[in-house]
Amino acid sequence: MSKTTLAIIAGVSAAAGSVATAAIYASRTQRKDSPSPTLPSPPTSTYPSSPPPVPIPTPLRKDLLPPVNPTGVFQYGFPGPINDLHPTLSTTSSFDRRTRNPAWVAEHITPSSIDANNADRRHSIFVEDETIPEKFRAKLHDYFRSGYDRGHQVPAADAKWSQDALDNTFLLSNMCPQVGEGFNRDYWAHFEDFCRRLTNHYPSVRIVTGPLYLPKRDHEDGKWRVSYEVIGNPPNVSVPTHFYKVIFAEDGKTGGDVSLGAFVLPNARIDNEKPLQSFEVPIEAIERASGLEFAGKLPTQRRKRLCEEITCSLLVRDYADRQKNLMGSPPPKKLGAGPKSA
Amino acid sequence: MSKTTLAIIAGVSAAAGSVATAAIYASRTQRKDSPSPTLPSPPTSTYPSSPPPVPIPTPLRKDLLPPVNPTGVFQYGFPGPINDLHPTLSTTSSFDRRTRNPAWVAEHITPSSIDANNADRRHSIFVEDETIPEKFRAKLHDYFRSGYDRGHQVPAADAKWSQDALDNTFLLSNMCPQVGEGFNRDYWAHFEDFCRRLTNHYPSVRIVTGPLYLPKRDHEDGKWRVSYEVIGNPPNVSVPTHFYKVIFAEDGKTGGDVSLGAFVLPNARIDNEKPLQSFEVPIEAIERASGLEFAGKLPTQRRKRLCEEITCSLLVRDYADRQKNLMGSPPPKKLGAGPKSA
Repeated sequence: MSKTTLAIIAGVSAAAGSVATAAIYASRTQRKDSPSPTLPSPPTSTYPSSPPPVPIPTPLRKDLLPPVNPTGVFQYGFPGPINDLHPTLSTTSSFDRRTRNPAWVAEHITPSSIDANNADRRHSIFVEDETIPEKFRAKLHDYFRSGYDRGHQVPAADAKWSQDALDNTFLLSNMCPQVGEGFNRDYWAHFEDFCRRLTNHYPSVRIVTGPLYLPKRDHEDGKWRVSYEVIGNPPNVSVPTHFYKVIFAEDGKTGGDVSLGAFVLPNARIDNEKPLQSFEVPIEAIERASGLEFAGKLPTQRRKRLCEEITCSLLVRDYADRQKNLMGSPPPKKLGAGPKSA
Repeated sequence: MSKTTLAIIAGVSAAAGSVATAAIYASRTQRKDSPSPTLPSPPTSTYPSSPPPVPIPTPLRKDLLPPVNPTGVFQYGFPGPINDLHPTLSTTSSFDRRTRNPAWVAEHITPSSIDANNADRRHSIFVEDETIPEKFRAKLHDYFRSGYDRGHQVPAADAKWSQDALDNTFLLSNMCPQVGEGFNRDYWAHFEDFCRRLTNHYPSVRIVTGPLYLPKRDHEDGKWRVSYEVIGNPPNVSVPTHFYKVIFAEDGKTGGDVSLGAFVLPNARIDNEKPLQSFEVPIEAIERASGLEFAGKLPTQRRKRLCEEITCSLLVRDYADRQKNLMGSPPPKKLGAGPKSA
């Protein structure tokens, strides 16, 4: 038996203890829809329990009835994928059960939500998302001693308007393994700060954040390969190669203009001197890479380009200053992200 | 700008021709729901066009109305993932828009469907699945000179009961890049033949087949990594590291016994001497690795273990013989997959 096969079986054995293969066949893991009391109930999942309605294919010749029914397998359960949509006060996420990372996490910030300061990060703790079935869930122990930070996709500092809202950002379904020094605690944090400062110029800002697993060209054979680490023992949570943010900066009018910004950053140490705009990409590049669509219903005539409207650059403060800021006072106004100087 | 970022932008540029970034911002790719006339219409996708109903989260303190609405981003379109469920006469598939491979393809075979011989493989051609939006679709040219076969997940030889049913198996949404010699044309083909021969013993057999991307332990640093090639220029279709089949062999009675078999094979040359049963795994191992669930609604008391009921072994015929067989005569009966000799 190959080493890889052994790895996935190890995963099963770890979950089932020392139970033999025969017992695993007999076991059933039921999805527990048991959100914690402070969280709103998740909406009905894609195909929660009953098989989806599927039209019976009709053959061309009426006298030839199909001898088989391929959708009949749904009697044993719909295989998925299930998107595990999970709205909370401060986040809405969709989970990728294969990589044990979110597919995306959406947030909404406004000048008043950023100004409010009704919560303390020291009262929040990282928690597993129990709305996701145990066998597909990211676990606290997967991150332990992995060398990676539990990297917020929706930043904690964006949800200080209530302790519940802040706590919601500490769900592991809002986390990806991120390089700590030089990225999560530095360049990425400055990028998050840039997003918050957008509320100096826009009355309403929506941000969708998530992981990517991008191919690199092999210098030796010229082939493109995706390669990423999987943390946990047995291996459970994929380490993304990159992260994206899609930003919708709204002018506050119904049907008004939306300034779009799309960025892809490597999950790696980044020099603070590197211009933010060097990470700007067409939104379609993120769509192709993620398999998601972000602005399919936003008409062309309402679209503007964020980095043509304002200066897309970071305001670098050192880590200690930033931490102090997260704990208490609102971010400085009037600094950075100013209107584009022609 | 990094090489990887360049790669994803190259993907966009290739699709958009020489159109500049600004034009990409202004463009909208609408999903074309235009199945070919011989195919049944796909059912309504997960979240086809309108945003899903999402309950408004309620804060604990009634006097504190949430200042933000994270689900409001759905006004610009639901990001996905969309499962692209596509039922045909002989297959039902779900597509993974990120890897450009199916997530799974289900089929159903019976003694009479396998015996029937109303179609000719020479009349079938490989076709792109136009029910999948262009930017997420696997393309014929991605496979061209890639070094990989367009590997059927539901085998062509399982759908000879009508030319339409056979043609349906040639959709690229039923294909994954497979190693040809020693795998797709050999061991995997013998494995598919094993599945067909199950109809000698069971009146109804359902099979779900699909790709996996499994981690391997690095000998040097001891870390687990997933690594796979992406074919196409620009890179578009992922090359799975492994393939799974989950087999439901039914006794033909309503609510009757179901013999379950689950197998994981590497996408690599496999020696014909290697016993099939060395690739047998607990069904839960495939569920954890794929993020899918296959038998959640099958009660324990109805489950049997396939390889305890019959001999799980291959009947190796050489490639030329097998090809002859695919073109015409039904597979030999009474051979192989016999009842387990105690």
